[in-house]
Order: sequence, then C-alpha cells, then structure tokens
Amino acid sequence: MINWTNLDELKSFKKLEKLKSQVAPLKEMLGGEEGAARVAKYSIPMATGFRYNYAAKQVNDRVLKVLQELADEAQLVDKYAALYNGEMINTGEKRLVLHHMTRGLLGDRVIADGEDKRAFYLEQQNRIIQFSKKVHSGAIAGENGPFKNVVQIGIGGSDLGPRAIYLALENYARQKGMLRMKAFFISNVDPDDAYSVLSGIDLSETLFILVSKSGTTLETLTNETLVRNMLENEKLDPAKHMIAVTSKTSPIANSKDYLDSFYIDDYIGGRYSSTSAVGGAVLSLAFGGFLFDRFLQGAAAQDSQARERDIRKNPPLLDALIGIWERNVLGYATTAVLPYSQGLSRFPAHLQQADMESNGKSVNRFGEPVKYKTGPVLFGEPGTNGQHSFYQLLHQGTDIVPLQFIGFSNNQGTLDYEVKGSTSRAKLCANLAAQIVAFALGKDDDNPNKRFDGGRPSSLIYGDKFTPEALGSLLSHFENKIMFQGFAWNLNSFDQEGVQLGKVLATRVLGGECTGALEAYSKLLLK
Amino acid sequence: MINWTNLDELKSFKKLEKLKSQVAPLKEMLGGEEGAARVAKYSIPMATGFRYNYAAKQVNDRVLKVLQELADEAQLVDKYAALYNGEMINTGEKRLVLHHMTRGLLGDRVIADGEDKRAFYLEQQNRIIQFSKKVHSGAIAGENGPFKNVVQIGIGGSDLGPRAIYLALENYARQKGMLRMKAFFISNVDPDDAYSVLSGIDLSETLFILVSKSGTTLETLTNETLVRNMLENEKLDPAKHMIAVTSKTSPIANSKDYLDSFYIDDYIGGRYSSTSAVGGAVLSLAFGGFLFDRFLQGAAAQDSQARERDIRKNPPLLDALIGIWERNVLGYATTAVLPYSQGLSRFPAHLQQADMESNGKSVNRFGEPVKYKTGPVLFGEPGTNGQHSFYQLLHQGTDIVPLQFIGFSNNQGTLDYEVKGSTSRAKLCANLAAQIVAFALGKDDDNPNKRFDGGRPSSLIYGDKFTPEALGSLLSHFENKIMFQGFAWNLNSFDQEGVQLGKVLATRVLGGECTGALEAYSKLLLK
Repeated sequence: MINWTNLDELKSFKKLEKLKSQVAPLKEMLGGEEGAARVAKYSIPMATGFRYNYAAKQVNDRVLKVLQELADEAQLVDKYAALYNGEMINTGEKRLVLHHMTRGLLGDRVIADGEDKRAFYLEQQNRIIQFSKKVHSGAIAGENGPFKNVVQIGIGGSDLGPRAIYLALENYARQKGMLRMKAFFISNVDPDDAYSVLSGIDLSETLFILVSKSGTTLETLTNETLVRNMLENEKLDPAKHMIAVTSKTSPIANSKDYLDSFYIDDYIGGRYSSTSAVGGAVLSLAFGGFLFDRFLQGAAAQDSQARERDIRKNPPLLDALIGIWERNVLGYATTAVLPYSQGLSRFPAHLQQADMESNGKSVNRFGEPVKYKTGPVLFGEPGTNGQHSFYQLLHQGTDIVPLQFIGFSNNQGTLDYEVKGSTSRAKLCANLAAQIVAFALGKDDDNPNKRFDGGRPSSLIYGDKFTPEALGSLLSHFENKIMFQGFAWNLNSFDQEGVQLGKVLATRVLGGECTGALEAYSKLLLK
Repeated sequence: MINWTNLDELKSFKKLEKLKSQVAPLKEMLGGEEGAARVAKYSIPMATGFRYNYAAKQVNDRVLKVLQELADEAQLVDKYAALYNGEMINTGEKRLVLHHMTRGLLGDRVIADGEDKRAFYLEQQNRIIQFSKKVHSGAIAGENGPFKNVVQIGIGGSDLGPRAIYLALENYARQKGMLRMKAFFISNVDPDDAYSVLSGIDLSETLFILVSKSGTTLETLTNETLVRNMLENEKLDPAKHMIAVTSKTSPIANSKDYLDSFYIDDYIGGRYSSTSAVGGAVLSLAFGGFLFDRFLQGAAAQDSQARERDIRKNPPLLDALIGIWERNVLGYATTAVLPYSQGLSRFPAHLQQADMESNGKSVNRFGEPVKYKTGPVLFGEPGTNGQHSFYQLLHQGTDIVPLQFIGFSNNQGTLDYEVKGSTSRAKLCANLAAQIVAFALGKDDDNPNKRFDGGRPSSLIYGDKFTPEALGSLLSHFENKIMFQGFAWNLNSFDQEGVQLGKVLATRVLGGECTGALEAYSKLLLK
C-alpha cells in the first residue's frame, strides 16, 4: 500500500538532516590519489551506454545508506509503478500521468477513455510515420514541389523540448544524410518571433505544425492566424500547408483546415510531451520516423532502469535523492545544467521548464502548504561557453551552486582538426574534466583573489557518442529525476496552477476591465 | 576623497537592515485604487525615451531615503566619476576601466599607453566604418562577388553581447532595409558549433571576424584553424576572408593573415566590450556604421544620466541599490531578467555573464574576504514564453525571485494582425502588465493549490519602440547597475580570476600531466 508522506515526516529524512556536518569536505574525499578510486567507485552505468558519475557530490557511503532508506520509506519506486500502471497521480487535475507510455510499456496496459493507451500512442506514432513518408516522397507536397521546411507553432511544452531535441540531433542527422527537412520553431506571441522565422524561408515549400493540446492556446492560435494570413497573401492555401497536433476533443481536431491531425491526450503534460506527437511530428518530418523511434527506444530503456530499487544502480533515482540532500539539508537554492555539447545548447532551457514548472510548488499533492523547500531555480548554458561567462560566480561567488555536467567523448559532426596537438573534441573534454576537479578541489593561494575554496559539488553524465538513443536516455533521466523528487517532496509534479492567474488578468486587460495597478500598468504598455 | 568601504561597515547599510520588517506587503502598497498612484509615482524617465518603473519593488519612501544615504555614503557616483576619468579601478589587474569611453566622453580626457583613449576608440570606430563601406560596396569582396555573410568567431565577452545585440536589431534592420549582411556566431570549442554554422552558408561570400583581445584564446584560435582549413578545402584564400579584432600587442595584430585588424585594449573587459570594436565590427558590417553609431549614442546618453546623484532621477543607480536591498537585507538569492520581446531572446544570457562574472566574488577589491552576499545568480528567457515554462516556480515556489521586466509598446517588424480583437503586440503587453500585478498582488483562494501569495517584487523598463538608441540605453543601464552594485559591495567588478584554475588544469590534462581525480576524469572523457 502506498503512503503519501511529506518529506519532513519521514524518519529517514530526519536521519539525513543529522548527517549534515558529518561528510568530509570534497577536497579530502576527492583529493590525492584516493580521488581516482572514488571516481571509479561512484559511477553507475545508464541505459544506452552512458554512465552517471557522482564522485564529486558531497556524499559518502553513510549518506548513501540513508538516501536508500529514504527511497524505500518514501516508496519512490512503488510510486513510479503506480504512475506507469495508470493510477491517478495528477491529483490537482485528477488525471493519469502516461508520458512514459508514449515510448514503452513498463507495466500493465492502461485503458482510459475507452481505449488502450499504449495502442493509442503507437497508433499516433505510426500515423506520423506514414504521413512523413508521404511528405518525404513528395506525395504530399507544396505548390512548387516537395516540402523542404517544417515549422512548429507552439509554446512552452509544445516548443522547448522538441526544439532542444531538434537542435541536439540536427548535426547528427545531417552527417548521416538523414536531415530530410529543416525545422524551425515559432513560439512567442511577440510577432517578431514569427517575422524572424518566416522572413527567411520560402512559404511554398513549408509545412506548418500547429501544436496545442487544448486547441485554445492564445499565443499559438495568434501565430497560426498570422501564418495563415501570410500564406494567403502569397496565394497559398493554408489548409494544404498545415497539420495539427492536439487532443481529440479540441476545437481544431480533425478539421478541414488542416491536412491531417495527430493526437495527444490529457495524460501527457506539455513539459513531458517530447516523446508524444508533440515531438514526434516535427522530429519525424525533420529526421524520419526511424530516427525518432531510436530516440524513443533510448528513453524507454532509461525508463526501464529507473525501476531499480537499489539506488546505486538507478541513476535518475540517485540523482534525485542527492538533489534532495543538496536542497533540503545542505541548503543550496539553485542548480545548473552544463552540457559540454553545443548540440545541447537549448536542453537546459527545456529542463528549466520541466523542473521548475513541475516542482516549483508550495503545497503538497493534497493542497496542504509544506514547510520545506521544494524545486530549486535551474539554469545553464553549454560548455565551454559558460566558463567564459558565469563560471566566475560558480567558482568564487558567495553561494554554492551544485552542477550537473553532461559530456561526450566524440563529436556529432566530422569536422575536427588537431590544433596545437589536440583535437577540438579533446579540448572540450579536457576542459570538462578540469572544471569538475577545479570546482571540487579548489586551489589555495597566498593571494585571496586567486584562491578557490572548492567544495562545489557536481555530477557527470557522460557517454561515447551523441546518438538519438543517447538523447532519449538523457531526457528520460531528467524526467524521472524530477518525478522522483516530486514524490519525495510529496508534490503533484503534473499540474501548473501558476500559469492561471496571469491568464485571467491578461484577459481582463484585453477586455478593458481592469482597475488600480493593473489598469495603470496596462496604460503604460498598451498605447 | 574617495573611501573604499565594505558594505557592512557603512552606517547607512546598518540603518537599511533595520528597515527589513518595516515595509508593508506589496499587496497593500500596490493594491486597490492607491496602486495606480504608486505606479505613476515610482517611475523615472531614462535616456532615449525609456522609463524605469519600480512601483512593484518592496520599497517605500523611508527605504528610498536610506538608499539615497547609502549611495552618498558609499560615494557611488564619485566612484563612477573616478572610473570614467581614468583611475585605476581594476585593482586585481591594475588597469583602467574605459568601456564608457568607447561611446562618449563623460569627463576628462584620458591618456594611457601614450595615446588619448577617446581618440583611439573613435579611430577604430571610423576605420570600421570605412572598412564596412568597402565591403558593402563590393570594393572588398569574395571570389564570386560581394560578401553577404559575416561570421564572428569569439567566446564569452567576444560573443554573447554582440550576438544578443545582433539578434535584437536584426528585425529592425531588415524592416528598414538596413540588413546589409547576415551575421552568424561561432563560439564553442565544440566543433559541432562551427559545423552547424558553416554547413549552412556559402563560404565564398563569407567574411570572418576573429575576436580575441589576447590573440591566444584557445577556443577562438581552434575555431579559426577549423575555418581556415575549410576555406582552403574550397580553394579560398583565408587571408582574404578574415579580419581580426584584437589588442595592438597581440600575436595576431596587423598580420598578413588578415585583410585588416581593428583594435581594443586592456581597459575594456570582454563582458563590457559590445560598444567597442568587438561589437562594432560585426554590427557595422551587418547593419552599417550609422546604425551602430545610433546604438552607441543611446548608450552614451544613458551613461550620462547615470551620473545623477539623486537616486530618484538615476535608474541604473536606483536599480542597483534596490538590488542590494533585495540581496543583502531581504535575502533573495537569485534574480531573473524577463524581456517581453523576442528580439531580446539572448539578452539575459549576456547579462548573465556581465553580472555574474563581474560580481560573483567573495573577496573585496583589496583581496580581503567579505562577510556578506555579493552577486546573485541571474537567469531569464523572453516573455511570454517564460510564462509557459518556469513562471510556475516564480509564482508559487518556495523561494522569491525578484524580477526585472523589459517591455515595448510597438513591434519591430510590421507583421501583426488583430486576432480575437487584439493585435499580437497588445497580447504581449497585456500579459506583461498582468504578470507584474499577479506576482505582486497574488490572489486568495479556498483551494491552496490555486492560491497565489503575491509579494514577488519586480521592476519594469519600458519604452515605445525598440530602436538602436533604445538598445544602447538598455545595455548601459545594466552595465552601470552592475558597476554601482560592485562599488557598494566594494568588489573589483572588472577582473575574473575564476576562469584561471580551469585553464591551468585543462592544460595539464591536454599535456598528459595529471594525477588523482583529474587523471581519472580525463580517462573517462578522453578516449
């Protein structure tokens, strides 16, 4: 039987708090020759060949033991099973949470709304594959020839994840001759976003994807109208240039205004929808359904490993627990995701949504205020760029920011040369290794301005090569880490009431029904 | 005479601390009909037509009075004068700090290294104007015709600011017929960055700018070699496709490997170099020297206003002081910059460097450890996108994040339509007004999950239209805010020792001379 308990009511959490001052500094644990042994020991294989290394985290075997107790007492893996087996985990909206099912079946079949959900998601995936084949063959084409561009119109979860994944795989696909169409993304209601994208492409060879689960997302419908008008201005028929990704019950489902519609449902939250049709349509059109399926398989493999009860064999679970230790015991307020890969340049922005929108909550899953810290602020930029930007504060600032590094041994593209005796890839990796150690061990110096305290903890996810499977595994790692943390904090990670108040007030402003400060600010901005 | 005092030794700071519990909640100060009066009152005109509104900040006239005392006691405006008059403000590196001088002369002429510095910066600006004219006219051209693309190769300060400004003005320039060349940026040592950019353009019509003050930046030289090899592979002569932006004493200055060189000096820090040749070359080539000069004029105008002693007439100074109040008295650990403008999509990333690299320090300008918090973590994404991403945590999370909004009443591009009774621009502005009020006032609800506590402070910089002058003024506002905060914290905002340790260790890794954890991590990543 599952018990939903607040973090601070867990016996194991109280034990954990007592360990705060009982961990040696990182300089000791990771320094000297013993440091190498720790690096070898604190390492877990992930699915698809990656490894998760936590040697630079401020943990020891005692802390890990109590984290295991916390995982067990909080029943984290059982709660995961309840989720993928179709229990109503999204208490705020009274919905199931089934994003894992878009890429695999981890447990029971789930029937909801009169249909087998795994079959439904597979059906959409297959319909997308068939549609993409027709577009790639030219059977479905623009007025002047085949569609060469695909533009996704969507915001938030309908934008950030798919965009990050497209950017992550574009070079890989190009190098393998699998870049079938170039993808673009329009998201902001600021018309300068659409203007920027549309001014650079030939509309007659462009296919647009309208992504809105509800079919009512203001920004997206506004941008759709903008695009339809532009198509009509060029004597192009919008209905022949657009597809929809939406729910079956939305106003835009199965409409003659679109070439076709592909479906998602209420059990897939926007920030968890990259592996559904929300990511599937644009990524299959851009790269082919086969590459997208490889990405799904990588995610499914990592979802599977996330069921492991032994935290030392379950990277997303361990990563989640260490995050709780850092947030609630060590007291760190923020965290940074630092991928040493330019292809992952927008991955931190996607994780920023996934993490902060899921766990940026002050009440638990039953609507009761909690007395402990929950989701931290998350930010990040790729390396090595961040080293030349904000790492100064990370090294020598007055707050410690736990870091989450991601690295690859090999390039995606073939372009690389030896310069001053090493390839660019080697320089990237050398910098990553150097930063991890610099953060952890620091360096003494007579000049305090040049002194590094060290003691800045980090994790490292690393692998050989950046493939679609690897990316899927990476996405699943973070989705499941966020889920496990949400369970530990006893939150509902799957709603987002925080977006509502702004919507209500914006509607009031547009309707001219506002007073006081709202009216005053409106007058400043709306001329 | 100027006294350099730690923040916690200022009498006015001790007074400020006592005010912590003496400010009414934002709900009271900004709520009801009085809220409108506060919005009107707490507003300051900036240079170039902008306004800075602080009605949603947790301040009252008492706090503002003490902040004025702090500005006076800490001699913030006098320290600014010392800086632009050429005193050795960068104590860590024993250098002058002259970035303001790249756009105007605020005080005395400054002679350094045997030359009048204002004249030197103007000379470079003029040389760039002449060079750009030749490129635009085709007098300097590629093998097959005029140069159509310009690619900046640089990292950190040589990348983020110019890139953000290019993106900010691209639509404006395009609409005005001033987009002379399309600009791209290569920064990361990850060769996938260069690969991504270069695979999409015709090299024969591309001009490259190599930006490195020292002439030795690893990532930049590595990317330069990559590019030179690619040019040679296409039988193009690199020396006819490249210019350099560097210091006169660097190894790449005035070299026959480049068509021309444009100069910066040691008195312009990378993160403050957008208004020097670092931004000037790429922006003049892309938009013409005239547009770049308008940008400089906007910055110069704002620099001038920043000399005002009355904080209620000096937005960067007031913004800086309120930031000190928030960081050191109210105890907020982070801040977010949220521009409601897609053109400003990378402006937060530039500010992230400018702010965190300047003030992410634990020792003061004399190398003495300080006992108070200094630079906060800074992050941000454009609106309305952020609303669908991380605003959930900002509204309902367990930490308060002070917000810095930026808004414009009018689009840059001409593309806009009325949809459901309002233009896209109106929707953008309505959302901005709504968010400010939602954050400040919150909303009660019987359901705690739908409850908003409010009390989340924000500032708003807003203006009519996004022009080059406006952007210059915006840049200057933040540069000077950071500077004033650095003075208040008694830091040296102009060095960055935090980048050194990583460099040393990376060199050791590449040279194979590492042991312990460094060797272990290297082996994981370098295969």
